[in-house]
Amino acid sequence: MSDIDALAARLRAGLAPDQVLTDRQQLRTYECDGLANYKVIPALVALPRSAEQVAIVVRACVDAKVPFVARGSGTGLSGGALPHADGVLIVTSQLRDIVELRPEDERAVVQPGVINLQVTQAATPYGYYYAPDPSSQQICSIGGNVAENSGGAHCLKYGFTTNHVTGLQVVAPDGEQVQLGGAAPDTPGYDLLGAFVGSEGTLGIATEVTVRLTRLPESVRTLLAAFASTDQAGAATSAIIAAGVVPAAIEMMDVLSIEAAEAAVHCGYPAGAGAVLIVELDGPDAEVRAQFDEVTRLCDEAGAFEIRVAADDTERQLIWRGRKSAFAAVGRISPDYIVQDGVIPRTALPEVLRRINEVAAGHGVRVANVFHAGDGNLHPLVLFDARVPGEAERAETVSGAILDLCIEHGGSITGEHGVGVDKARYMPRMFTDTDLDTMQLVRCAFDPDGLANPGKVFPTPRLCGERPGRHQGAHPLQEAGLGEVF
Amino acid sequence: MSDIDALAARLRAGLAPDQVLTDRQQLRTYECDGLANYKVIPALVALPRSAEQVAIVVRACVDAKVPFVARGSGTGLSGGALPHADGVLIVTSQLRDIVELRPEDERAVVQPGVINLQVTQAATPYGYYYAPDPSSQQICSIGGNVAENSGGAHCLKYGFTTNHVTGLQVVAPDGEQVQLGGAAPDTPGYDLLGAFVGSEGTLGIATEVTVRLTRLPESVRTLLAAFASTDQAGAATSAIIAAGVVPAAIEMMDVLSIEAAEAAVHCGYPAGAGAVLIVELDGPDAEVRAQFDEVTRLCDEAGAFEIRVAADDTERQLIWRGRKSAFAAVGRISPDYIVQDGVIPRTALPEVLRRINEVAAGHGVRVANVFHAGDGNLHPLVLFDARVPGEAERAETVSGAILDLCIEHGGSITGEHGVGVDKARYMPRMFTDTDLDTMQLVRCAFDPDGLANPGKVFPTPRLCGERPGRHQGAHPLQEAGLGEVF
Repeated sequence: MSDIDALAARLRAGLAPDQVLTDRQQLRTYECDGLANYKVIPALVALPRSAEQVAIVVRACVDAKVPFVARGSGTGLSGGALPHADGVLIVTSQLRDIVELRPEDERAVVQPGVINLQVTQAATPYGYYYAPDPSSQQICSIGGNVAENSGGAHCLKYGFTTNHVTGLQVVAPDGEQVQLGGAAPDTPGYDLLGAFVGSEGTLGIATEVTVRLTRLPESVRTLLAAFASTDQAGAATSAIIAAGVVPAAIEMMDVLSIEAAEAAVHCGYPAGAGAVLIVELDGPDAEVRAQFDEVTRLCDEAGAFEIRVAADDTERQLIWRGRKSAFAAVGRISPDYIVQDGVIPRTALPEVLRRINEVAAGHGVRVANVFHAGDGNLHPLVLFDARVPGEAERAETVSGAILDLCIEHGGSITGEHGVGVDKARYMPRMFTDTDLDTMQLVRCAFDPDGLANPGKVFPTPRLCGERPGRHQGAHPLQEAGLGEVF
Repeated sequence: MSDIDALAARLRAGLAPDQVLTDRQQLRTYECDGLANYKVIPALVALPRSAEQVAIVVRACVDAKVPFVARGSGTGLSGGALPHADGVLIVTSQLRDIVELRPEDERAVVQPGVINLQVTQAATPYGYYYAPDPSSQQICSIGGNVAENSGGAHCLKYGFTTNHVTGLQVVAPDGEQVQLGGAAPDTPGYDLLGAFVGSEGTLGIATEVTVRLTRLPESVRTLLAAFASTDQAGAATSAIIAAGVVPAAIEMMDVLSIEAAEAAVHCGYPAGAGAVLIVELDGPDAEVRAQFDEVTRLCDEAGAFEIRVAADDTERQLIWRGRKSAFAAVGRISPDYIVQDGVIPRTALPEVLRRINEVAAGHGVRVANVFHAGDGNLHPLVLFDARVPGEAERAETVSGAILDLCIEHGGSITGEHGVGVDKARYMPRMFTDTDLDTMQLVRCAFDPDGLANPGKVFPTPRLCGERPGRHQGAHPLQEAGLGEVF
C-alpha cells in the first residue's frame, strides 16, 4: 500500500468516505486555481466539514510526511492553491457557516468557506457590510481572502483583508488548533494574526475568521472622467489625494483597456479618451456632496474633457461595468494575456506608465493598463498570442520587467494577488537573502518539515534542520569581528 | 575581568568611550521607565548613534551571552524597558534624525529616538501630521511607540502605531540588520512588520522607521457633554458609533476622575456630573458640521444635562485640559494609584463599569475611570495609600480583577500600554498554553538564547532548545491517536 493509499484509508476512517477523493477524474477538478497556466493534479482531495476534521487531515499528513495545500474557492491569481502532485489538497468550501453576526460590536464570525459577498448580504439588513471587495467577491471565499490578504477597488479607503480580520482560529502546520487575535482591536503578545493573514497557506489553515463589519455609508456618488492621456489622469489622482480627499475608490483604465471593455460590454465611455478615471466617494451625505464638487473641479483642472456623474444606481453600475469587465474583456482584443499585479508609490504613476509603454514597445508587445490608481496598485494586462512562436516568451519578459520597474520605484511585486507559485522567483529581486532567511525562520518555527504549501512564496526553501543556520556564513556582520565591522 | 568588564572594553573600542556607561550613579538614571514601582539598575548602558552601532552592541551581547534591553525615552507604563541587572541597556535616544520627509507620498523615515510630536512638527508645514498620539507624545520616542504599538486618544478613528508604520530597519536579536516592510502599503511574504510592532523589544531593535503621514483635517470641532451617570455616557457613545459616525476621539471620565482633574487644573467641568464625554470630530468642514449636529442630538437624547461646544482653539484646549491631566491629577486625591489598561467591546461598557464599581466597593478601594470610550479602552485608576498596611495589596487585587472582567467580556488585558514585566503574569488568563507556546516559537526562531528583553511579555520563557517541544506532551491533539480525537 502506497503512502497515499494508507493516508486515504486513515482519512476515510477519520472523516467520512465521501469526504476523501482519490479518483483521478474527480481530482482533475482541482488541478489549478484562477491562474490556469499552472496545472498539477493532487494525489488526494479532502473535504473537511469542521475545524476538528481539518486538524485530523493535517495531523495525518504530518505523520505521513505528506505535503498539504489548502484551497478555498480556487479564484486566486498567483497559483497559491496549486496542488502538490504527491500531496493532499484540503478544500475548505464545506466550512460555510456564518457562525455569529454581532453588528452592535461590528463583528462577524464566519467559517473559511463562506463567500466574501455573503458576509455583506448577511450584514446588510443591520446596516453593515464587509468592506474588502476583490473583483471575484461573488465567488471567492473568506479563507482564501485571509490566505492572500486580498484587496479590491474600495481598499483605498478601507484597507485590505488584514485591516478587517481581528481574530482567527487556525490549524497550525503540526495539526494544533490555535487562536490568533480575537474580537478586540489588538491583543497582547506578538501580532501573529497579521503574520498569518497573507501567508498564503504556509503557516496553517484558518478554520474560523472574526471580521470587522463596516457601517453602510449614508451616501455614495460616482463619476467617470475622461482624459487625453494617462499622464493627465495620474495628475488628477495625485491632486485628489493631495487635497486630503480619500475616495472609496479611484480606478484608472488606459486606451487599450477601454477599447477592450467597449468591445465586450459596450459601456459607452467617452470617445477618444486616452484614459478614464472612475472616482467613487462614500460617507455622510454632507461630506460626499462637498468633496464631490472638489473632485470634479480637480479633474477639470487636470484636463478632463468630459465628466459624467452617475445620477442613480443604474448609471453608477454602468460606469463600473466597463471597469469590472476589463480583465475578461481583454479576451476580445487578444487571444492570451498575463494579468500582472504590482505596486508603486502613487506619485510615480506617470513615470512608470511611460516606462511600461517603452518596455512593451521595445519588445513588440501590447500592454493594457487597468488599476487601482489611488493606492498605486497596477494591473497591467500583457497581451500575446500563444500560437505565434516567441510571443508568450516576450510577454513573460515584459511582465517581469514591469515588476522590476515597480521595485525600482520603491514599490512591490504584488499588490493583492499574492506571490504563490508564480512570483516566488521574483522575491530575490525585492528582498536580500537575509530578509528572506528571516521570513523563513518563522516558516521553519511553525513547519519544520516544510509540509504546508511547499514551493509557494519562497524561491528556495530553507533547510529548517540547519538551525542556527543564519549564524553560519552569508552575512558579513555574522562573520566579522567587531573591529572589522566598525 | 568579569563578563561585563570585557564587554565594556569591547564596546568602548567599537563605539566611543563616552557611549558606554558603567558608573553606578550614571546607571541609576535608567533604573526604571514610566512604571516606577519596578526598579533594576543595568550592568551597562550603551548609547549608540547609528544602526551599525546598535548591531555592534547586540552582536557583542550575543557573543558574551549577555541579555540586552532596548529603551527609547523611558515613558512606557508596563515596565517594558525595565533593565536587566546583569545585562546591557541599549538607549536609542541618540538616534534622533528625521532621515526623510516625503509628504507627497505620505511618508516620513525617522530614527527611533525621534520624539513622536517632532514628526508632526516637521510635517505640519506641508499640511500633514503623524496620527498616533499617546498622552506622552511630547517626550515619548517613535522607537518606543513601535515596541509597544502605542495608541492615544485619536486612535479611535486613525488606528494604532501598527497602522501607521509601513517599514522598519531592525537589528535582529542575533545582530543582523534586516528590512521589514517598506514604503508600499503591503509587501509580499510574511507580515513580520506587524509581528515586530508591539513585540516589546523581544524580536530586536528598530533602527529606522518609515511612518505614514496623515493629511491635517480641514476642520476640528470638540464638545463636552455632561451626564448624570457613566451608564448614560456609555449609551451616548454606543449611539454615536451605531449612527455610523467615527469621531476622532470619544473620551469618558467618571465622577472621581472629574473631581481629581478639577482639583488639579480647575478645568471647570459642569458641576454635578456623574460622567463627562469629550467628543471630537475632524475632517472636511461639511462633514464635521453635519455630524456634529447629530452627535449633539444623540448626547441630548442619551440624557446629557449640559453640552458645551468649543468656540475656538482656546476653548478646545480647556476641554482637553481636564482629560489630559487626569492621570497626574489623581495624585491630588490619592497618594498612590495604579494606572490599569484593559479593553472591552464598546457595548459592554455600562456592564463592566458597574462590575468594576462592585469589585472596588467589595474591597474598600476607590477606582477613578478615565478612558477611550469609543474603542472600549479602559484606564481605571486604582487608588490606594501605600502607608496604610494592606491597601497596596487590595489595590493590586482589584486591579487584577479588572483585567479578569475585561477578559470575561471578550476583551484584552492591555489596550495600548503593553504587557512588559507588569502583565506577563496575566497572559495565561487570556491565552492557553498552546497559544503562548505558538507565540514563543517565533521568539525562539529569532532569539534562541533568549537574550532580547528576557522576562517581558511571556510568563514562563520557553526553553528554545527543546524543539520540537510542542510535539511533546501538553496538547491533547498531539498525544492522541486519530481515533481518540475524532
